[in-house]
Amino acid sequence: MSGEDAPAEQQNAVDQKQETKAAEEPKAEPPKTEPAPAAAEATATPAAATEKVPEEDTFTYRALVLTGYGGYDKVKLQVKKGKPALKAGEVLVRVKACGLNFADLMARQGLYDRLPSPPVTPGMECSGVVEAVGEEVTDRKVGDKVMVLNRFGLWQEVAVVPSTHTFLIPEGMSFEEAAALPVNYITAYMMLFDFGNLRPNQSVLIHAAAGGVGIAATQLCKTVKDVTVFGTASASKHETISEGGVTHPIDYRTKDYVEEVRKISPKGMDIILDPLGGSDTHKAYNLLKPMGKLITYGTSNMLAGQKKNLLAVAKNWYHQFSIHTLSLIQGNKSVCGFHLGYLDGEMELITQAMNTILDLYKEGKVKPRIDSTWHLEQVGDAMRKMQERNNIGKVILNTEPMPEEEKKEEPKKEDKKKEDKKKDDKKKDDGKKEEKKDDKKKEEPKKEEEKKEEPNKEEK
Amino acid sequence: MSGEDAPAEQQNAVDQKQETKAAEEPKAEPPKTEPAPAAAEATATPAAATEKVPEEDTFTYRALVLTGYGGYDKVKLQVKKGKPALKAGEVLVRVKACGLNFADLMARQGLYDRLPSPPVTPGMECSGVVEAVGEEVTDRKVGDKVMVLNRFGLWQEVAVVPSTHTFLIPEGMSFEEAAALPVNYITAYMMLFDFGNLRPNQSVLIHAAAGGVGIAATQLCKTVKDVTVFGTASASKHETISEGGVTHPIDYRTKDYVEEVRKISPKGMDIILDPLGGSDTHKAYNLLKPMGKLITYGTSNMLAGQKKNLLAVAKNWYHQFSIHTLSLIQGNKSVCGFHLGYLDGEMELITQAMNTILDLYKEGKVKPRIDSTWHLEQVGDAMRKMQERNNIGKVILNTEPMPEEEKKEEPKKEDKKKEDKKKDDKKKDDGKKEEKKDDKKKEEPKKEEEKKEEPNKEEK
Repeated sequence: MSGEDAPAEQQNAVDQKQETKAAEEPKAEPPKTEPAPAAAEATATPAAATEKVPEEDTFTYRALVLTGYGGYDKVKLQVKKGKPALKAGEVLVRVKACGLNFADLMARQGLYDRLPSPPVTPGMECSGVVEAVGEEVTDRKVGDKVMVLNRFGLWQEVAVVPSTHTFLIPEGMSFEEAAALPVNYITAYMMLFDFGNLRPNQSVLIHAAAGGVGIAATQLCKTVKDVTVFGTASASKHETISEGGVTHPIDYRTKDYVEEVRKISPKGMDIILDPLGGSDTHKAYNLLKPMGKLITYGTSNMLAGQKKNLLAVAKNWYHQFSIHTLSLIQGNKSVCGFHLGYLDGEMELITQAMNTILDLYKEGKVKPRIDSTWHLEQVGDAMRKMQERNNIGKVILNTEPMPEEEKKEEPKKEDKKKEDKKKDDKKKDDGKKEEKKDDKKKEEPKKEEEKKEEPNKEEK
Repeated sequence: MSGEDAPAEQQNAVDQKQETKAAEEPKAEPPKTEPAPAAAEATATPAAATEKVPEEDTFTYRALVLTGYGGYDKVKLQVKKGKPALKAGEVLVRVKACGLNFADLMARQGLYDRLPSPPVTPGMECSGVVEAVGEEVTDRKVGDKVMVLNRFGLWQEVAVVPSTHTFLIPEGMSFEEAAALPVNYITAYMMLFDFGNLRPNQSVLIHAAAGGVGIAATQLCKTVKDVTVFGTASASKHETISEGGVTHPIDYRTKDYVEEVRKISPKGMDIILDPLGGSDTHKAYNLLKPMGKLITYGTSNMLAGQKKNLLAVAKNWYHQFSIHTLSLIQGNKSVCGFHLGYLDGEMELITQAMNTILDLYKEGKVKPRIDSTWHLEQVGDAMRKMQERNNIGKVILNTEPMPEEEKKEEPKKEDKKKEDKKKDDKKKDDGKKEEKKDDKKKEEPKKEEEKKEEPNKEEK
């Protein structure tokens, strides 16, 4: 997951734009056309290898590319040419499905520093089949079904990654499930069982309990005896998260979640998972019991609207939680920060966590919940669904080519704009809180500030 | 350990000053002379109870009293009169031995807000024998040997505490050991196994490894497979702490401990126990591995000299560690604060920890190390030994009356001053670092600041 681990194809492959608005995109790296080394060719037909047909001419694959920071349309589908070269220890994976994460949404707005500058292929997790192995790879072979975790670069049909970043998919797990598992479950697992040290009879507050991490965390909580889970989500999702194991669902849109928690658990929480940041981190700290652990793992409060919302970013910075050790000592509290994207080079820790999670999967104790699956062509809609917190569980991309008839059904640019407007109208009906969300020209009344942060508490 | 739990005798008993300098002491609470309730009298002879001889006239006991903030001489031995009343749920303990803690030294200087204002009896832990039980006490009986943990008030011959604050002394444990165990072992246990989540193969940095908490923490680390312990202490203590389980002793007086740790473990530490505060907390944070936990549990850097050193206090505040959540997230780190004195009302957590510790004691895996035992009359010397970091292990007071011949050997006031001077002279010989430690009139050159903090890193 370090810089060195970045898939090579972005630099090596020849970009062949499918989109027509190439002019507005930042200039791509000058194309390099090195032939793929022998190791990579081993999987090609022997005939091709001996005849030395340059694979650049024959090998193409589709890739999503972030072409600049901004709205959903900044992620474009392109066709790349040339088989990526494999270095020692790397494998080439034919990607079947990819997971969307909140960090991808942050990255699109330029709010996530682990993604290199555009043009770049985003994507931190995928599933697929090993199609070629580099030298020194002993633990993976051609044909292995794997899930992959990488700093970026996995939203494409073909990905080259270190073999240590792949995990064998267990029997019976679909490619969609496998693409949904790594980021959410490793994040939830390490937060709860490493930093959180979750033990029987404890209480956990999970924000965005219907999101990917929220559902994973709830399932993992249920693997420990008598753990009480408090989960925030909008009311329409309560039935689902209750079935998933949330003991006390809380509708943060209509109620003060701090009050709701205190009503049931006056002393507060043993563990709080906080993906929100800003003023919610302060609330979480105050909601901790003695010996309680606050684990903050994101700043989704920063994300308001399709493009970078400077007001939301500034507000998040302004309210950013900062703690003195004397306060920690007097409160007997713990504050932890977690983000898988920054765990560079800690593949040993990650692999340990993954092995435990896969054991739990095999025992039927955890199972990724897929909200919806989208074609690569639909990445904008997929991102929108997640960003607008309309998902319950994981949003997945699959790499199957989109059937022609579906493409015809796809609304044109003009229609899309109308659709955006329709969605905005729908949102307005959802309640006054969201009314002015995307209306940046209008001056926001100050008393609306708190309420306006609320839509961000959903689903990460 | 809450305010309500404070021993009643301080308010109820009649102070009978042994010391002559009563004039300079803050005025004590107006004495109350309520007769002890029936529950307390149940243990007196039946004859006494029926004849209604007021116990105030016959029951006396010696108590150490902090008479005002300042140097060692502010803790005075007084004789109190009147058997303390027992409320429901309380027991009266005939104290045999008391433990000294760093918080007691802080308290004497007015730097510990969990001790009420003087006059007050300090002392957070002791051992002894139950001499009377109040109503509703079912788990303790007269004659039980117990160790006691309380917010304050245990440095006296007789203490009244809630029975839930007592723990049965296991077979074979001396009163000295029992007085040495509660604070240090519960502190070390909760830090390592609750916040720290210590697991096999991890590395732990223990500052003040020859102090009470340091020795307890080292022993507890050794109960987990393949844990590597780095411990700071002055060179003269290295042999002892190595025998106790410290893998890599580091002489912080002659070497930069950060460099020494990095030489052996370039990636840093999994857990760091920090009793120092100030700039050492910053160093600790930077020394953490990803997923590492910094547990800060004191500010002993504040303690420089016998009386409150405003410069040291200010410096500690100035350098006080403060952390933003974004930094924690990007570092994947945890910062925890611990202090047993603030764990009010968490007797369930404390009892769980204590039960585990006592099991480990019975298995021979942990054993308090006593540095030295002192009479109540010698409390000043006992505090001095600890404050000057000359102890290896626990400093204990015992309540046995001091033999007359020893008292004669005690130096008079004049001699004590000379002794202080001698000790100061000795300190000067200990190295340039300590040279100007107690010389507050002299302006300190800035480059000496770092070095001058070092003497505080020893033994908590």
